[in-house]
Amino acid sequence: MACCPKSVISEIVKAKGAIKSVYFVACGGSYAGLHPGKYFLESESKELKVDHYTANEFCHATPKALGADSIVITQSSSGNTPETVKAAEIAQKAGAASIVITNKPESPLAQNGDYVLVPEKGSTANSGQAYSLKLAVEILNQTEGYENYDEMYNGFDRIDKIVGNATQFIAPRAEKWAKMYKDEKLIYTMGSGSAHSVAYSFAICLLMEMQWVNSSAIHSGEYFHGPFEITDRETPFIVFMSEGRTRPLDQRALDFLKQYAEKLMIVDVKELGINTIDDKVVEFFNPLLLVHAIRVFAQKLSEERKHPLTVRRYMWKLEY
Amino acid sequence: MACCPKSVISEIVKAKGAIKSVYFVACGGSYAGLHPGKYFLESESKELKVDHYTANEFCHATPKALGADSIVITQSSSGNTPETVKAAEIAQKAGAASIVITNKPESPLAQNGDYVLVPEKGSTANSGQAYSLKLAVEILNQTEGYENYDEMYNGFDRIDKIVGNATQFIAPRAEKWAKMYKDEKLIYTMGSGSAHSVAYSFAICLLMEMQWVNSSAIHSGEYFHGPFEITDRETPFIVFMSEGRTRPLDQRALDFLKQYAEKLMIVDVKELGINTIDDKVVEFFNPLLLVHAIRVFAQKLSEERKHPLTVRRYMWKLEY
Repeated sequence: MACCPKSVISEIVKAKGAIKSVYFVACGGSYAGLHPGKYFLESESKELKVDHYTANEFCHATPKALGADSIVITQSSSGNTPETVKAAEIAQKAGAASIVITNKPESPLAQNGDYVLVPEKGSTANSGQAYSLKLAVEILNQTEGYENYDEMYNGFDRIDKIVGNATQFIAPRAEKWAKMYKDEKLIYTMGSGSAHSVAYSFAICLLMEMQWVNSSAIHSGEYFHGPFEITDRETPFIVFMSEGRTRPLDQRALDFLKQYAEKLMIVDVKELGINTIDDKVVEFFNPLLLVHAIRVFAQKLSEERKHPLTVRRYMWKLEY
Repeated sequence: MACCPKSVISEIVKAKGAIKSVYFVACGGSYAGLHPGKYFLESESKELKVDHYTANEFCHATPKALGADSIVITQSSSGNTPETVKAAEIAQKAGAASIVITNKPESPLAQNGDYVLVPEKGSTANSGQAYSLKLAVEILNQTEGYENYDEMYNGFDRIDKIVGNATQFIAPRAEKWAKMYKDEKLIYTMGSGSAHSVAYSFAICLLMEMQWVNSSAIHSGEYFHGPFEITDRETPFIVFMSEGRTRPLDQRALDFLKQYAEKLMIVDVKELGINTIDDKVVEFFNPLLLVHAIRVFAQKLSEERKHPLTVRRYMWKLEY
């Protein structure tokens, strides 16, 4: 059992020789949390088959390419999510390398992992999201080579400081937003590229699950192809502005929203200090920073709504 | 310029030799309409890199694997969607084979296609969705081989009759649903596997764009990992029940909804007669059938709401 993404991938590449496919598989917030790796490999790899599955779909509609030349990366904080446990089991039975990211190294999920990575508490550079990204970077670098490898690790060296400053910076704005919109029944989220997963996570976990507020994560690139017609002065939006290649998509949506929406919150990674990371790789860090920002917004909203983030109607209370 | 999916792919394979990657690229409803091909290849191909992009993301964050051994399939009914036109141009410049699906063979999009496929009016077997799926089937069969090829074409032979019966069958139910829920401000849609794209299309095009009703397409496999907490007796859901491997995901969500939701509509492809198609391939036809069902629902809803499907606030009215 190797300690860290680099040595995990090095062992796998050594044992297997060729790697042909990489699957990122989890549920809900953990599914979103694996997207940084998927987005990176999809963008940068010339050879690898890459996909991102919600675990139960992976279990039931297992792709035929899964086999001995595959790597399957699963994630569950508790290590108990049954669909994800099953997915890692399927991966192992197919002869794939099973890499598990979990806080519980003795959990059922960990038992279906050939390699288990435990995120470091309080560290962004060694969070589950970061492990997903680092695993992807290592897979690429150790198979095809990756020219921006050093810049990427330089980014990991900087990200914790950026996050620390950003969460302090954003808190007053989040508080104001929470006071203004605490009674809203629906809040749309929006993002693109590597940050779309954060818009998704904010929508389904923090708003829908933890606050019982209706939501949907709109991809900035899709906004003008349907969703924008619901824009009006009454409908709240929170827009995650990425740095990097897809920023023009966010900007275009934002320019429109500024004209036709009023209940608008912008969370811009540029303003949050992401640009100390090298331009060549900065976009891959958008979600690692934004995921902390959304927690600040969710926390403030929960306080204003007097609805703790831990309250559930169904989860932990009944069988389903 | 070849006439049909089989000969288009045959020409490409002959000219290029090896195919390594296939990209399905479009916007909004057309983006959803290409998902049948993406889902099929992702599931069935052992070798090909496959992905599905909203066009503007493909243009700005073009994957490094795009090149002479790629096929890019784009779709736009009008052939005028600027982001999709640009995507096809990028594909051609990279040396990829550009296949365009459009109703307008003289459109800007068509001009960026090496091959142009025009859907047949009134035909499901030769719709844009079906072309996406047939292209995928042909790519697989002509490169790796596909054991269920005959069953697949047998399905295409049957699908128009199934659709004809299904749309008649569903109309009274859709009318009843529309009368009951015409005043709702938000309606969630849900589906899995190949049908998730239909839930998406219903949400963003028919509800948000054409009816200004808030919506979000929840993946049945993700429902229990966040979204289910907003379930209550007041919140309307429409669940698309697939046939095939992911049906258990839909069934599990439905079983829960039946207990805790009241405003529930089920659109089940089994009930709509899909099972005359061979079990081995039936799941790939879910979206081809369901896309007609959602049009019936949207039409009835628009009548009850006295809000024609063609009304827009922004589209066609201003620059954005």
